[in-house]
Amino acid sequence: MSDAVSRPTLEAVAARAGVSRATVSRVVNGGDGVREPLVERVRRAVEELGYVPNQAARSLVTRRHDAVAVVIAEPETRIFTDPFFALQLRGISKELTAHDNQLVLLLTEGRDDHARVARYLAGGHVDGALVFSLHLDDPLPGLIEGAGVPTVFGGRPGWSDGTDSAVYVDCDNRGGAEDAVRHLVGLGRTRIAHITGPLDQTSAADRLQGYRDVMGETDPRLVVASDFTPTGGERAMGELLDRCPDVDAVFAANDLTALGALRVLRERGRRVPEDVAVIGFDDVLPVAEQTEPPLTTVRQDIEEMGRLMARLLLSTLARGGPATGAPSSVVLPTTLIRRATA
Amino acid sequence: MSDAVSRPTLEAVAARAGVSRATVSRVVNGGDGVREPLVERVRRAVEELGYVPNQAARSLVTRRHDAVAVVIAEPETRIFTDPFFALQLRGISKELTAHDNQLVLLLTEGRDDHARVARYLAGGHVDGALVFSLHLDDPLPGLIEGAGVPTVFGGRPGWSDGTDSAVYVDCDNRGGAEDAVRHLVGLGRTRIAHITGPLDQTSAADRLQGYRDVMGETDPRLVVASDFTPTGGERAMGELLDRCPDVDAVFAANDLTALGALRVLRERGRRVPEDVAVIGFDDVLPVAEQTEPPLTTVRQDIEEMGRLMARLLLSTLARGGPATGAPSSVVLPTTLIRRATA
Repeated sequence: MSDAVSRPTLEAVAARAGVSRATVSRVVNGGDGVREPLVERVRRAVEELGYVPNQAARSLVTRRHDAVAVVIAEPETRIFTDPFFALQLRGISKELTAHDNQLVLLLTEGRDDHARVARYLAGGHVDGALVFSLHLDDPLPGLIEGAGVPTVFGGRPGWSDGTDSAVYVDCDNRGGAEDAVRHLVGLGRTRIAHITGPLDQTSAADRLQGYRDVMGETDPRLVVASDFTPTGGERAMGELLDRCPDVDAVFAANDLTALGALRVLRERGRRVPEDVAVIGFDDVLPVAEQTEPPLTTVRQDIEEMGRLMARLLLSTLARGGPATGAPSSVVLPTTLIRRATA
Repeated sequence: MSDAVSRPTLEAVAARAGVSRATVSRVVNGGDGVREPLVERVRRAVEELGYVPNQAARSLVTRRHDAVAVVIAEPETRIFTDPFFALQLRGISKELTAHDNQLVLLLTEGRDDHARVARYLAGGHVDGALVFSLHLDDPLPGLIEGAGVPTVFGGRPGWSDGTDSAVYVDCDNRGGAEDAVRHLVGLGRTRIAHITGPLDQTSAADRLQGYRDVMGETDPRLVVASDFTPTGGERAMGELLDRCPDVDAVFAANDLTALGALRVLRERGRRVPEDVAVIGFDDVLPVAEQTEPPLTTVRQDIEEMGRLMARLLLSTLARGGPATGAPSSVVLPTTLIRRATA
């Protein structure tokens, strides 16, 4: 257990440097208006004593913490099992580190904890927030708005038309889904099903829309709701085979869903792609490469999206707010990656 | 982008409640010395306006943030690929959430970022810290000491004899390793190898010590250094088979190492356990259950260790410091789990 008493004080630094407390304070907060020899003496004293300025007090003056919060609106159990989040965090971490900003990941057990997250955001501990995986009925966006910290969202927020004040980074979910379904049509498939993600997320709703764009009015039994997890994909695929034994293609809303669907197809003796073609979404590695057979999928550059989110936020912070030349949202294109399943 | 201007102020709450700023401030900070009807009026105004107190200012008074930092002294890439960390975080998250404390995970790209982590810890943003996966030559412990926040460590710290002021939670690494190696001896194996973890971590050093306790003086070629990763395990197993083709058992320092070793044994046509018996350490699921064949391993209750770390820290904070009745470190027992590899 560390001993709080041993921490060197501002007074100790002042005594060591032979200057006033006010001088030390000015140097620690940027050194404006202090002569260079004095700055040097204070810096040496700070170093010798291992003095760490009290940032809570200092930040009341400078209003900067060089720290950015990341909030993923999912329970921590999902954050550590879906490689999507690790990839997005990797992009964010690289970008923040390159600018010497601390990544502060606020973990929760679920939605009940979001008010506490908002309190932390409002508490003056971070300069801004990166928020992703929002669900439509989640109070988090409102709470974050109330917290008053600059925020960039991952994925188009669903509570507005997405064209107003919210800045976000997303991929072209609808266009990517259209590519996938068009590819299945091009293979001559006629009974093309879609296993959706959680439809209270815009990514899942947009992918469903892309499926509908290409398929038009279709047998409603070919669309099965799921939740972006392998277990959900297994359940949905089982249901689909029971309802529509003649299904000959599946567009799964993400790779983990496709992974579950492939398992059930194998168990039920359906050959992939001969009997049923399968396409996923995300291209999260190693998942997509290591499925049996390797997965054809719609690639989005998840790490790059994380990097862009961080870059947009940092540029906003550097300008001191969103008022002038506010950055606009970014929507990245997707690519169909052909492997063995379609 | 949220609009910072829209955030309701203390003044607005005071006006709405028809009281002074000082009264609002007192109520927000606990309500001492304010008459109940006034407290009620302020509370109603706070609720109606959605006022969120500025915690940076408030915490200068109360000195509590209800937030605990978690620092894992590994780059984020490892945190998201080794299930050990997810399990430990799960235990920590459950315990902190149960006490309405925010888990603040400080991610880094590596050791170069540890000074920044220490600045954040010293900055008055958290009440305490849980720190794990320390390496011997890491400056982090010293930096944390300097930051002056109460800290509980995961794993016995290596920079002291571990019996002084540092509070930690660990498992019986040495005893667990002894059990594993004794089991291999009991199976009649005579050429028992050990693939170590990174020996600048006490967990790895203690497991090697346990191996030596049972084996005594042994062929030095039977001990190969590695790094707790599957790739490291592959490399070490390859080396081991080249050096000692007669090896008939391997105690791997963790399950991921064993996973890599099993891959190479399969590639080289060695049957497990007939030709080479293998034992891991950790029992991280689903890894240990899904290896081919399922892995015999030394189980430590990682989630419970996380929970205990959080509990020790919260009890220290509740007492206002480590001075009186300081909690002592905890070392949990391990259990040998027999599956198919030994």
